[in-house]
Amino acid sequence: MRNWLPLLLAFLLTVRLADASEIQAPDVSRFVLNNGLELVVIPDRRAPVATHMIWYKVGAADDPRGKSGLAHFLEHLLFKGTSTYPEGAFSNAISEIGGEENAFTSADYTAYYQKIAPSALRQMMVFEADRMRNVVLSEDVVLPELEVILEERSQRIDSNPGAIISEYAQAALFVHHPYGNPVIGWEHEIRQLTLEDAISFYDVWYQPSNAIVVVAGDVDADEVLSMARDTYGAITKSSIPQRVRVVEPPAVVSRKVEYEDQRVTSPSWRRIYLVPSYRLADERDAEALDLLAMILGGATSSRLHGSLVLGSEIASYSGAYNSASSRDMGSFTIYAEPRGDTDLKTLERSVDEEIQKVVQDGVTQNELDRALRILSRTVIYSRDNQVVLARIYGSELAVGGTIENVQNWLGLLQKVTVGDINRVAKKYLNKSRSVTSYLRSGKK
Amino acid sequence: MRNWLPLLLAFLLTVRLADASEIQAPDVSRFVLNNGLELVVIPDRRAPVATHMIWYKVGAADDPRGKSGLAHFLEHLLFKGTSTYPEGAFSNAISEIGGEENAFTSADYTAYYQKIAPSALRQMMVFEADRMRNVVLSEDVVLPELEVILEERSQRIDSNPGAIISEYAQAALFVHHPYGNPVIGWEHEIRQLTLEDAISFYDVWYQPSNAIVVVAGDVDADEVLSMARDTYGAITKSSIPQRVRVVEPPAVVSRKVEYEDQRVTSPSWRRIYLVPSYRLADERDAEALDLLAMILGGATSSRLHGSLVLGSEIASYSGAYNSASSRDMGSFTIYAEPRGDTDLKTLERSVDEEIQKVVQDGVTQNELDRALRILSRTVIYSRDNQVVLARIYGSELAVGGTIENVQNWLGLLQKVTVGDINRVAKKYLNKSRSVTSYLRSGKK
Repeated sequence: MRNWLPLLLAFLLTVRLADASEIQAPDVSRFVLNNGLELVVIPDRRAPVATHMIWYKVGAADDPRGKSGLAHFLEHLLFKGTSTYPEGAFSNAISEIGGEENAFTSADYTAYYQKIAPSALRQMMVFEADRMRNVVLSEDVVLPELEVILEERSQRIDSNPGAIISEYAQAALFVHHPYGNPVIGWEHEIRQLTLEDAISFYDVWYQPSNAIVVVAGDVDADEVLSMARDTYGAITKSSIPQRVRVVEPPAVVSRKVEYEDQRVTSPSWRRIYLVPSYRLADERDAEALDLLAMILGGATSSRLHGSLVLGSEIASYSGAYNSASSRDMGSFTIYAEPRGDTDLKTLERSVDEEIQKVVQDGVTQNELDRALRILSRTVIYSRDNQVVLARIYGSELAVGGTIENVQNWLGLLQKVTVGDINRVAKKYLNKSRSVTSYLRSGKK
Repeated sequence: MRNWLPLLLAFLLTVRLADASEIQAPDVSRFVLNNGLELVVIPDRRAPVATHMIWYKVGAADDPRGKSGLAHFLEHLLFKGTSTYPEGAFSNAISEIGGEENAFTSADYTAYYQKIAPSALRQMMVFEADRMRNVVLSEDVVLPELEVILEERSQRIDSNPGAIISEYAQAALFVHHPYGNPVIGWEHEIRQLTLEDAISFYDVWYQPSNAIVVVAGDVDADEVLSMARDTYGAITKSSIPQRVRVVEPPAVVSRKVEYEDQRVTSPSWRRIYLVPSYRLADERDAEALDLLAMILGGATSSRLHGSLVLGSEIASYSGAYNSASSRDMGSFTIYAEPRGDTDLKTLERSVDEEIQKVVQDGVTQNELDRALRILSRTVIYSRDNQVVLARIYGSELAVGGTIENVQNWLGLLQKVTVGDINRVAKKYLNKSRSVTSYLRSGKK
């Protein structure tokens, strides 16, 4: 398992504590159907529930140039009915059995899932296999759905100063690579998406050889395989184009974005450094960055919290995390919110001192041990939430990784030395690789 | 004539003073050949010399995604010989008659020109028409020429801290539109350009209906037309794809780039605002921005020079210019270099005060009159340099403008009121539309 930390940490507060030694990595099975569809089964027998997810290896970073938002638009359109089942039939079937469903699009993938009773798994596969190829898209649905998405964008981004500046920070971090485009799309490009765009994107990417089905729960792997063969297996194989993405030029100039908005209730400061993804990192670099983030700001025992929140009391909170599970590049984020009237420049100076300290003097073995303990616990806790568990495997496979990557992550973390952490701190916490955001309350 | 100010001002110092009233706009002729090639003839009879230019309506902003630098690479390859004339034959013919030649690529166009005796014009057309379609490109020339370009990039950009930060400032100003890519290309993409890339770009764009031939000099328009028909006119017509470029999202977040380099001898400060191009601006906005730039920082009588260089002596120089002659968007630049030990933040505060003054209190009729006088003179002076004269017409036509735009520019400037200038100052000198650059001497 690797760094799905943001995902994991979000769940940390809600899961029960367990003794690390009790829990083993689950005995995951993997199959590939004749049409190329990959099937992963994760046993999780603690409750009579199953999670069925399908992951398409296509996301917002694959949107054609000038058509940002298309992958996400198509995610919405997949709820519009097929030639077999009218709109609503799939969702109604889920809610009738008390199930849950959802879907999400990232830069690298698009996924759909249902959490249901294991007995409903076959039915879910019938529905999901059907909508892989039989979605019926018509002009009638395009405009209303674009309105829904524009409203979503307006709510999630344009009404949210933090999201507005974050969209620009992302664009400034990735000056060339499509990770610089928002997943939901730039508003003016969302408005111009067409039925033809959606159909051709669907036809190209929604194919069995571009899909991974992840089933977690109280299920038998062979039975799941048999169901998958009966349902997904009937879809004809088709070839998928290579995912070609432009490469980011070397980061040599430090960048800053500033935004003032009267809707800002508390100013905030954030710095994002460009770092390698797990997939492309040199050996141990990504693992060391995960541990570095934990030491610097992953917990209340971390340096930033100790120094800025508890110590000088300059900040009301502060933290750091490494996001390196994407396909092409990752980002290492440090953030803080000033307490009281402290201005952002003063706060930044204090954060920079902590960063300089770690770059120049490095970390200690004690800090590394503690960080490792916390990360190990997050791995273990994550197994407690079936949807999170399935997401971890699905997302890793969808960006080109393996089941082994997920299962060996803890072992790889344990191999990281103090020297590795000090090396990556020097290598990557370089301001020229970064974008700093100042979000302030004010006019506008 | 419109805002080719950076081009004009560069020549201002070297041209003789002339009385504005003496000089009329030249009597320019325009023809379109059957194959779609546009011919523009500008009489300029002061010396027995002619300038022959060909403009292709394709530039770096038309480089395919991931192949930045291709338009510029092709410019280089056009000197590699054709099926008719071996490499060097064209250039030798020019130097034998004491002529000059050059070529340049911008985001919007690629142009080639020769300054020769009028008697050699037909021969130039023969050569230039030949290389529009008969260039011979082989693997032999690709790698060595890419090396030449990488060396050019290394010299012009990577050895020049001002160019390094400027490349990033441009990328931060245009977060989505291809103007954010350097014309010469990102280094890693230059390295991957291929023979096939060059051939297909050439085949698509180097066509008569995508070309404008501008001839300035001591020539007769009908004779030039006849020569053009004999040479360019023989090329078969072919259709050209539409130039499709993505649109920049609204600029809502102010950006800053910072770069430190020990090779920096003097630190400098710069701010670039996103403004409309002449082609897309609302009525009088682009003209008013040209005048505003002149009032703010176009001359030693301008506000910034008076306040920062002569007044507080905080800056050793300071200025402003508006560049709005590109096809899709323009930029309005303000720059200053601190004097002595003044730091960039202090300097920025003083510049910001001047910007706020103009935004809040506006300009005076006297300032407008003086700016108009200076701009009028630049228009007139520009006619003194034949290559500049030809470039002004050529670049305007190449971005979709007209001869009338060039000739009426002065008239349009004269219609601008103090109210117009005050309006555009408020509308565009908004920090959220800008990128601020701090270039400092230092480590790295």
